Amino acid sequence: MQNIDGKKCALELEQSLAEKISLLKESQARLPMLTVILVGEDPASMSYVGGKEKACTRVGILSKVIRMDASVNEADVIAQVASLNEDPLVDGILVQLPLPKHINSTHVIATIDPAKDVDGLHPVNVARLYDKQPGFVPCTPKGIMTLLKKYDVSLVGKKVVVVGRSALVGRPVAQLLLNQNATVTVCHSKTVDIPHHTKDADIIVVAIGKAKFLSAEYVSSNQVIIDVGITRVDGKLVGDVDYEAVKDSCALITPVPGGVGPMTISSLLENTMEAYLNHTQEN
Amino acid sequence: MQNIDGKKCALELEQSLAEKISLLKESQARLPMLTVILVGEDPASMSYVGGKEKACTRVGILSKVIRMDASVNEADVIAQVASLNEDPLVDGILVQLPLPKHINSTHVIATIDPAKDVDGLHPVNVARLYDKQPGFVPCTPKGIMTLLKKYDVSLVGKKVVVVGRSALVGRPVAQLLLNQNATVTVCHSKTVDIPHHTKDADIIVVAIGKAKFLSAEYVSSNQVIIDVGITRVDGKLVGDVDYEAVKDSCALITPVPGGVGPMTISSLLENTMEAYLNHTQEN
Repeated sequence: MQNIDGKKCALELEQSLAEKISLLKESQARLPMLTVILVGEDPASMSYVGGKEKACTRVGILSKVIRMDASVNEADVIAQVASLNEDPLVDGILVQLPLPKHINSTHVIATIDPAKDVDGLHPVNVARLYDKQPGFVPCTPKGIMTLLKKYDVSLVGKKVVVVGRSALVGRPVAQLLLNQNATVTVCHSKTVDIPHHTKDADIIVVAIGKAKFLSAEYVSSNQVIIDVGITRVDGKLVGDVDYEAVKDSCALITPVPGGVGPMTISSLLENTMEAYLNHTQEN
Repeated sequence: MQNIDGKKCALELEQSLAEKISLLKESQARLPMLTVILVGEDPASMSYVGGKEKACTRVGILSKVIRMDASVNEADVIAQVASLNEDPLVDGILVQLPLPKHINSTHVIATIDPAKDVDGLHPVNVARLYDKQPGFVPCTPKGIMTLLKKYDVSLVGKKVVVVGRSALVGRPVAQLLLNQNATVTVCHSKTVDIPHHTKDADIIVVAIGKAKFLSAEYVSSNQVIIDVGITRVDGKLVGDVDYEAVKDSCALITPVPGGVGPMTISSLLENTMEAYLNHTQEN
């Protein structure tokens, strides 16, 4: 068994981005900027946004957080997005989810300029993914694909089982894997016998948010296991995979923490850099 | 074994539409209109468009075919689409594919008003399907779902294998089945052992355009088999399924012709009616 070291891979990505940005600084070019809209004071959201700001700082991407009161209405958020769409200094726009219940996040996301949609959630980017056109890919699925490539996991013709079908992870990662010529099965809460599928897989991706869900009875030998879950249990971060129970039988596995998690943020930085490059090339 | 009678199901759909439209006529309301843009003189395309016109006539939907010379450029086609987008009498717009090679069909389709995109190919409708939002669904996948419902094929937790991953059929039908809580596997040309997957399925959907591809070695017993292929072999229409070889072991099967085929056109009529109703409710 070998661990997939997401922390190291993310660090390498950040170093590569930092080098590119230091060249931009030397040439006195405008620097890439990510703007995050944070509505309300949900502690988890505040912590995620803090992590994104810090990551930007590490590589030299400018970041700005626009804090809005939890009581703002949908039109206020949309007006804020519209103003960022128009701002030539802003390359990436991210609306931190979830939004308060009285605001429809689908409406808000649809107003982001697709060229600044670094979270890859705008309908135009969703359609591009499914139509195999270039566009922004959501950060966690993008990070998973980067890890698989980094560890030379071949995908063509491989049996991949994705457990979970969320819009943020399960569905887009299934599509990315299919686009790379894997044979993809999507399992979920209504699947009758998940182990029947996961045992037969070459690669398993689990993204359901249930601590230690994937136990020994779900796996066979020599598989690649990608664990997307992060749940806090007794103050400790735990994945969707029962790591201790399956680590000896698999070929490669992402630990939690230190696997997929760090790749999500570095993929966001990559998307922001990509938006910046597209943006400056246009002008 | 029981045949899934697509011809009969399509006829019932048409009768139901015809009744609704005769009520519109009685009340002297404006009637729904489908407009098809046909570029060039490809015989297959001309025949398909002819079939669509006849189907409209049968139920009382107005239809108009705009014929453009194969030498027109992309901007001409886009200008034509724009004019139909603005026309308050046009409910559905369909650009017959394939377009001549010098015209990018992705560009053209992206200019159709999503509210008139009765083929369900505009990025907004693609994204709606993947985001589980209401929108126009491509006609063949929609027809397949109607047949499965008509024949009371339960989908929740069922193992469905879709062979083929085209934008028109394989990918959208896989998503529709997943949205209905089936456990869905997508196989394709790079899948290593397709029979391994199809034999294990409760429901098989084949959409690859290879005559008699799904032979006895691909199936087990008591399955539901949906055959989307239509190939002309020695002047006869043949599906992707070797019907004679598998018919005795399966529970339900769509014949070719008379299975999925007739449902594609009746789904187009349904989408046009839906566009009309949305359109008239808006005003």
